[in-house]
Amino acid sequence: MSWSKAMPANPVVAVAGATGAVGQEFMQVLHDLDFPASEIRALASARSAGKKIEFAGCGQVPAGELIVQEMTPESFKGVDIALFSCGAGISKEMREAVVAAGAVMIDNSSAFRMDEDVPLVVPEVNPDDVSWHSGVIANPNCSTIQMVVALKPLYDIAPIKRVVVSTYQAASGGGAPAMEELYSQTKDFLNGEELKVEVFQHRIAFNCIPHIDVFMDDDSTKEEWKMVVETKKIMGDESIAVAATCVRVPVLRCHAESVNVEFSGEVSVEAAREAYETAEGITVMDDCSSNTYPMPGLLAGTNDTFVGRLRKDPTVEHGLALWVVADQIRKGAALNAVQIAQLLLP
Amino acid sequence: MSWSKAMPANPVVAVAGATGAVGQEFMQVLHDLDFPASEIRALASARSAGKKIEFAGCGQVPAGELIVQEMTPESFKGVDIALFSCGAGISKEMREAVVAAGAVMIDNSSAFRMDEDVPLVVPEVNPDDVSWHSGVIANPNCSTIQMVVALKPLYDIAPIKRVVVSTYQAASGGGAPAMEELYSQTKDFLNGEELKVEVFQHRIAFNCIPHIDVFMDDDSTKEEWKMVVETKKIMGDESIAVAATCVRVPVLRCHAESVNVEFSGEVSVEAAREAYETAEGITVMDDCSSNTYPMPGLLAGTNDTFVGRLRKDPTVEHGLALWVVADQIRKGAALNAVQIAQLLLP
Repeated sequence: MSWSKAMPANPVVAVAGATGAVGQEFMQVLHDLDFPASEIRALASARSAGKKIEFAGCGQVPAGELIVQEMTPESFKGVDIALFSCGAGISKEMREAVVAAGAVMIDNSSAFRMDEDVPLVVPEVNPDDVSWHSGVIANPNCSTIQMVVALKPLYDIAPIKRVVVSTYQAASGGGAPAMEELYSQTKDFLNGEELKVEVFQHRIAFNCIPHIDVFMDDDSTKEEWKMVVETKKIMGDESIAVAATCVRVPVLRCHAESVNVEFSGEVSVEAAREAYETAEGITVMDDCSSNTYPMPGLLAGTNDTFVGRLRKDPTVEHGLALWVVADQIRKGAALNAVQIAQLLLP
Repeated sequence: MSWSKAMPANPVVAVAGATGAVGQEFMQVLHDLDFPASEIRALASARSAGKKIEFAGCGQVPAGELIVQEMTPESFKGVDIALFSCGAGISKEMREAVVAAGAVMIDNSSAFRMDEDVPLVVPEVNPDDVSWHSGVIANPNCSTIQMVVALKPLYDIAPIKRVVVSTYQAASGGGAPAMEELYSQTKDFLNGEELKVEVFQHRIAFNCIPHIDVFMDDDSTKEEWKMVVETKKIMGDESIAVAATCVRVPVLRCHAESVNVEFSGEVSVEAAREAYETAEGITVMDDCSSNTYPMPGLLAGTNDTFVGRLRKDPTVEHGLALWVVADQIRKGAALNAVQIAQLLLP
C-alpha cells in the first residue's frame, strides 16, 4: 500500500509528547528550520494538559504561547504531519487514529522501525524511502542515525563488509529525567551525599554503564541490536555486518562513537575526506596538529554529524577508523524527524 | 646479558615518585601485599623532600612515617628493587645509577618498554620474561595491562588474529592533578563558572576526549600505538593485530575497554567463561538477568581485572565481544609493578 493523500504546502503539524526532551526540541527545530506549518498542535498526556509552551514561531505560525492539549484519538483531526516522541506504547495506541485522520506519523519510538510497511529514514542516507510509506515513517535510533550518516559517503566509494562500533552515549538518550539524574547525582557525589539511582540501572555520575535498553536472548542489548538491524535497513544492504557495544557515559546530550569499518574495496583516508567535504549534514573536525576532533561535551545544540580521528585501520585489508559525534536530541531525534517531514512537502 | 645478582629475601625497596598518584599507591600496595621489604625509601623531587608520608608497614618495616628524600643518583646505594613512577625523562636519567647500584628498576614509564633488553611484564601473562632482565623491567601501559590479562586465557584456547578495542579511560591516567581537574571542572560546570583547562587538552567534565598522549605520524595516538606494540610484546606473538581507539572519559580511576576479539579457531562463550573461572587476577561479573557487569565508577581500589558483557560476536567466523574494567592506578600501574617485584623474590 502506498499513500495517496497529497501533502499541503503549509501542513498542520501535531507534536505528540510536546513536554518531553525531544518534544521541546521538535518545537525548537521547527522554528530553526522555519518549517512552513499552518498550525502547530502541542499534545501530551493529561498530566501536562493546560501547560503553556513558549514557541518561537515557524511558517505561518507566529511566535507566542502554545497551550498543551491532552492527546486523544480525536486530537489528529485536520492534522497533516504528527511528530511522535512519547514512547513505543503510545505510538502503537495512536497509530490507527493518526492514519485514519489522514496524517502521516513520523515516529521517534522503536515501535514500527522494523515493520515491513514502515520506511526507516535518515534524509542524508535514504531519502527516497519516504515514497513508499503507508501512513507511518519511523525515525531510527539515535546511535544508528549518526553512524549511518558517517558511513554512507564511504559506502558510496566501496561497499562495507563489517563495522565494529563502541558507543559513548549521553544521558539525554534517557530523556529529561535522565539528564537531571546525571546532574543531581554528580552534585551529590561532589558533596559526599548518598546518590539516588532512579532512571539508570546504576549510578551514572563518574561512571560508564555498558547497558542501554533491555538485554536480548543473545546477551546483546536491544540498543546494540537496533544498531545492527537498523543499519542494514537504512543502508538497504543486508550484508553489512555490525558488531556494536553500547555504553552510557556521564555526558549530557551528544553521543560519540568509535567506529572501525572494513570495506570490500580500497577507501583511502584522502578519498574518505574528500567524500565528506561534499556530503550533506557532515562536518569534518579532524586536525591532529591542533588537537581538533569532535567532542560530545562541546557540540550540544548542533545539527551536523561530526567526524574526526579519521585514519587507516591497517589491521584489515581495506579499513578505516573514525570517531563520530552528534547531538542526540537534535540529529539523533528531533532534527532528523523534522527533516523527514521536509521530505514530505510538495 | 642477564642479571647475576641474587635477590635477598627481604629486599630494600626504593619508591621513586613517592608523592604522585601511583607513588602513593605503591605504598598502599606494598602494605596490602605485605611485601617482605627490609626497608622502604621514599624518593621524590627536591620540591617534595622533607614531606612526611604515613606508611602502614610491610614485611620488616613497621607502620609509621616515612620522610621523603630528594632522589639523586646516590639514593640507590644498598637498594635491591627500585619502583619508578616519575615520568620517562627521570627514568632515563636514573637508569644507570640504579643498575650500577645493583638494584633492579621496575619502571612504570614508557621509557624502556619496547627496548630489546627490557622485559615488559604482566605477571598473569608472561611471568617468565622477568628471567632475562638486565637491570630494568618495564611495567606496561595501563590500558594494555588490563586488556592482555583478559585476552590471555582466551588466547590459550585459540590464537588471536585481531583485536578491535575502544577504551573509556579514567582521569587518573593523567596523575593526581588530572583527577583534581576533573573534580574542580565538574564543580565549576555545575556552578555555572568558567572552566579552567590545564592538564587535559580540552574540558573533561561531562565530555569525552578521543586523544591520549601525543599524535603519531599515522594519526593514531601514542596511547593507541602502545596498545598495539605492547600487546604483541607481552603476548609474545607479533601476529596479533590490534586496532585501538583511546578515549578519556569523566571517570576518576578505573579504565573500561570494549573489546572485539577474532580468533583463529573456535572459542565459545562457555569455554571462555570456564577459562576465566580459573584464571588468576580475573573476576567475571557477568549476569544479564541481574544487570551485573563491571563498571569503572564502582571498582576503584580493587586488584582484579573484571570481565563482563561476554558474548559471541557473530560478525566474524570465531569472535567474542567483552567489556573489561580495572583500577588504572592499581592493576594498571602500582599493583602490577609490585607483582613484578614479587616475581623477583627468591
